[in-house]
Amino acid sequence: MTLRELVSRTRSFRRFYENHQLSLSILEDLVDMARLTASAANLQPLRYMISVDPQMNAQIFPQLAWAAYLQDWNGPSEGERPSGYIIVLGDERHSKTAAWDMGVAAQTILLGATETGLGGCMIGSIKKKELAEILAVPEGFEILLVLAIGRPKEKIVLEQLGEDGSIKYWRDDKGVHHVPKRDLDSIILARFNGS
Amino acid sequence: MTLRELVSRTRSFRRFYENHQLSLSILEDLVDMARLTASAANLQPLRYMISVDPQMNAQIFPQLAWAAYLQDWNGPSEGERPSGYIIVLGDERHSKTAAWDMGVAAQTILLGATETGLGGCMIGSIKKKELAEILAVPEGFEILLVLAIGRPKEKIVLEQLGEDGSIKYWRDDKGVHHVPKRDLDSIILARFNGS
Repeated sequence: MTLRELVSRTRSFRRFYENHQLSLSILEDLVDMARLTASAANLQPLRYMISVDPQMNAQIFPQLAWAAYLQDWNGPSEGERPSGYIIVLGDERHSKTAAWDMGVAAQTILLGATETGLGGCMIGSIKKKELAEILAVPEGFEILLVLAIGRPKEKIVLEQLGEDGSIKYWRDDKGVHHVPKRDLDSIILARFNGS
Repeated sequence: MTLRELVSRTRSFRRFYENHQLSLSILEDLVDMARLTASAANLQPLRYMISVDPQMNAQIFPQLAWAAYLQDWNGPSEGERPSGYIIVLGDERHSKTAAWDMGVAAQTILLGATETGLGGCMIGSIKKKELAEILAVPEGFEILLVLAIGRPKEKIVLEQLGEDGSIKYWRDDKGVHHVPKRDLDSIILARFNGS
């Protein structure tokens, strides 16, 4: 698969085949790829917790907010929830660069998930205090992001922004999730070409 | 190439074959991949400027600081500088999530560069005010990151942290660049397995 295919297929999935059992080693392999990525000043402030435990997953799930733009939907129902989670934590001494590293690591992990037939979603809207207690996060580290991982059970299509310019994703009556993306010419502000 | 190979080869290159001419379309294709990635709340606050113009490149270069840990080295000398730049800008109204998106986009672009035989470096240490004037950055946007792109001309190896625990990269007397990376067990703080 070319990287472009991999990137195109790496969407933000929010509904999964929850009975698809993940192994810890799959999540470890994904974290190990993130370990190899660039880190600002090579500080490597990110840490991880991983869960494929249904009981722990059931405690993590209520601490997450899903899909703010889908007002009639409070997140995946039982049976469609993630089979696993990768919690990304940051060393509080390097909180600024941890935010940069976080995107690098999260994208690498989700591309890796896609490659193995899985999918996931980066979730930043988290009840951090409650989740930190559940996970017994050690002092000096903060929860930055939760990656929900599972076997995707929804179709997602990218489309152009409509005339109203809205970037809100929406779900049609067949359950297909539509994500408006800005076009290339609107995001490249300048091109400098010598010849 | 598997994603793991691609990730492993995507290192922070700081010396290039400067006479390797890049086309604008190569950089456009990389930005177009970044365009397809996840964005916090799908706000898509990132914008881009791209340059393969030697004259513009010569103006961009002095605004960048290279490799803080290599104290005897002020950056690549003439002939070893990047052939192109992708400047990543953010909509100031969404500065918090732009930092998250930035890592996602930058990693996607550098993975794409690797796939096409190129390489690059994420540079965050920038004389932003000076560079914004050179590039005529429009109001409401700020420079977040500069991606230097070119055909790499250096060897980089990853290695384990030494006994002193230092994460500083270093260059040996053959010019090989060494990057200490934390091992997997030191970055996974907890594993939850149901069985």
